[in-house]
Amino acid sequence: METTKFAIPEIIFGRGSLNYAGQCALRLGAKKVFLVSDTGIEEAGWVQRLMDILEEAGIDWIYYPRVTPNPRDFEVEQGAEFYLKNGADVIMALGGGSSMDTAKGIAIIASNGGKIQDYEGANRVQHPLPPMVFITTTAGSGSDISQFCIITDVKRGVKMSIITRTLVPNISIVDPLILRTKSETLIIQSAVDALAHAVEAYLSRIASPFTEPQSLKAIDLIMRNLQDAVETRSLDSLEKLSIASIAASTAFSNAGLGAEHALAHSLGGHFDMSHGVVHPIMLTTVMRFNLPSCTSKMADIGRVVLNKRLGSDLDTAVQGIEKLEAFFASFNVPLKLHQVVPAEDKKHLEPICKMAVHDACNLTNPRPASWEEFLVICEEAW
Amino acid sequence: METTKFAIPEIIFGRGSLNYAGQCALRLGAKKVFLVSDTGIEEAGWVQRLMDILEEAGIDWIYYPRVTPNPRDFEVEQGAEFYLKNGADVIMALGGGSSMDTAKGIAIIASNGGKIQDYEGANRVQHPLPPMVFITTTAGSGSDISQFCIITDVKRGVKMSIITRTLVPNISIVDPLILRTKSETLIIQSAVDALAHAVEAYLSRIASPFTEPQSLKAIDLIMRNLQDAVETRSLDSLEKLSIASIAASTAFSNAGLGAEHALAHSLGGHFDMSHGVVHPIMLTTVMRFNLPSCTSKMADIGRVVLNKRLGSDLDTAVQGIEKLEAFFASFNVPLKLHQVVPAEDKKHLEPICKMAVHDACNLTNPRPASWEEFLVICEEAW
Repeated sequence: METTKFAIPEIIFGRGSLNYAGQCALRLGAKKVFLVSDTGIEEAGWVQRLMDILEEAGIDWIYYPRVTPNPRDFEVEQGAEFYLKNGADVIMALGGGSSMDTAKGIAIIASNGGKIQDYEGANRVQHPLPPMVFITTTAGSGSDISQFCIITDVKRGVKMSIITRTLVPNISIVDPLILRTKSETLIIQSAVDALAHAVEAYLSRIASPFTEPQSLKAIDLIMRNLQDAVETRSLDSLEKLSIASIAASTAFSNAGLGAEHALAHSLGGHFDMSHGVVHPIMLTTVMRFNLPSCTSKMADIGRVVLNKRLGSDLDTAVQGIEKLEAFFASFNVPLKLHQVVPAEDKKHLEPICKMAVHDACNLTNPRPASWEEFLVICEEAW
Repeated sequence: METTKFAIPEIIFGRGSLNYAGQCALRLGAKKVFLVSDTGIEEAGWVQRLMDILEEAGIDWIYYPRVTPNPRDFEVEQGAEFYLKNGADVIMALGGGSSMDTAKGIAIIASNGGKIQDYEGANRVQHPLPPMVFITTTAGSGSDISQFCIITDVKRGVKMSIITRTLVPNISIVDPLILRTKSETLIIQSAVDALAHAVEAYLSRIASPFTEPQSLKAIDLIMRNLQDAVETRSLDSLEKLSIASIAASTAFSNAGLGAEHALAHSLGGHFDMSHGVVHPIMLTTVMRFNLPSCTSKMADIGRVVLNKRLGSDLDTAVQGIEKLEAFFASFNVPLKLHQVVPAEDKKHLEPICKMAVHDACNLTNPRPASWEEFLVICEEAW
């Protein structure tokens, strides 16, 4: 095996695990925590609760509330200045992907200097970051687990991917009690996003024995629990979905993704669609495209989805894909591209496919795909 | 779910991954590495190779070669003094469990002061440790992955367990090229040790969705690859066994172990037997004892061992245990206690069982066991 690298944060998981936030910060040497969150979380009372927990642990804190969706370059640079001026020593984020990516961006600039653009791409962060403790409020983005940070370059109008192992937080706290307030749409979208992460990471060219079991576990948990989570909103099912999200994030953070995410990035960027909307439309079509290049691994997915193995790998794989299609259809979500893209915009698919083919996720797809092939996939999903 | 905590190091795995040692140290902020190893590894040329790698990365180092098997209290205290005097900033161990546990002991004292006895037990280390990079030469002890450190208290004549998440090294490098020189005995013993870790961690009362897939993956890899590794010594099979060892260590470090390890500690301490010798004798007997308390989970193990699921959980579980017995019997190792304990020493089993029942591992066993029950287990395995 070629060298493979595997990194995840320490994970504190369970109902009430937020209460460990003070101990976690202390263990990382905290005297003054830099706390990143947003007004929504603040209004829900969680920021105050966390401040109380830190005070009980005898830790000082400084609050940085200026998080916006899709954090921008100048915001993390301002944040870093604020961090340094206030002499904080541990960075804590309480929120979804935006709060966590803001915290990561601040951590990079505060310890490595320069501008956030200097770190775009893979492995460009040289010096250690301040210790980071993240507390997710969505259990969907995976930023609490992953080595990814997405910051918008305002001038160029692009979302920059910054990817390096030092961006994995030291400690990730996942408290299902915080997750109770998720809307039905957010439950479905987070789960579908995690499912796509798990499938594409499993089939990735750089999947490893360290990521594969995580992918299969995530697929299994989502197939068995999403319906119940939507119907009953039981804490048990929501908890299982957040375990699935952690497993899927663990897998994709270390194994990368594939052609479906490459397309989701271009489609989503162009038409302003979230990943959770794109996946039920595109995932199984891309799986059919990839099938000839990874039949045996696709059969492993089929075995988990069907909970049995059929006569041949091909049968298991194909029926697994069909079961996934039926699974998506059981939720009230669009299943065809024409449901979310106006007919007059169909002409944009060609430039979108030409952009997708250069997406980093396409590098780890099991079957090399040209832009013409991406266009055929979009036609099939239309 | 109650709060569960999951921690593993960042793992750099693969043939030639030793070459990343310099980069790893740099990423942790190293200017001067404190390198712990022993004369055996030194004579095999690996210490010099590592020093060259550090020098190429522009990192200064100080070498601490005074590692003995079963490291002792005064040794780690001397080591900590040496560490502090030399102004090192990252601790690197290259070796088996002894080198790694020595390095962990030094890290504790250097950053938390006092005596190593102050930290015996669980979660007694308060302050952060210096960054640690470990490179295993055996892929068996699990110290490169786990939150455990075992140091001998010379006065009391006991092995102290120090258990805390800060003992998980920052980075663990597993290079199968270093593992090529393992003897046949060491190959079998490491694999059997990992198998027992995986089984007991899977059945543990605090097993979690974060540890269970790791256990099953380890069991699967060991069942499919140990025979070939012993017969052909192929690098492929050895590599798969070291992946199994990482998975099993990940599982037991976070889920704990069970009654079989409780017995192995007492038996091994009394008769000076390694774990690898005890497991083929005791593991399946303890599994039969535990069966009524965890039939469904034992069936999961059976399904992996047999590579199929039978009509009922009980059938799958029982045939899985029988297949494990046949697996151990296929290697030239003792299968009964009387083969390793002289008949005149059988009378020691009672005090041994009375000690085992208080072992920390017994706390996480799926079925509570009294010392009388332990004695019945020993009789069955006699």
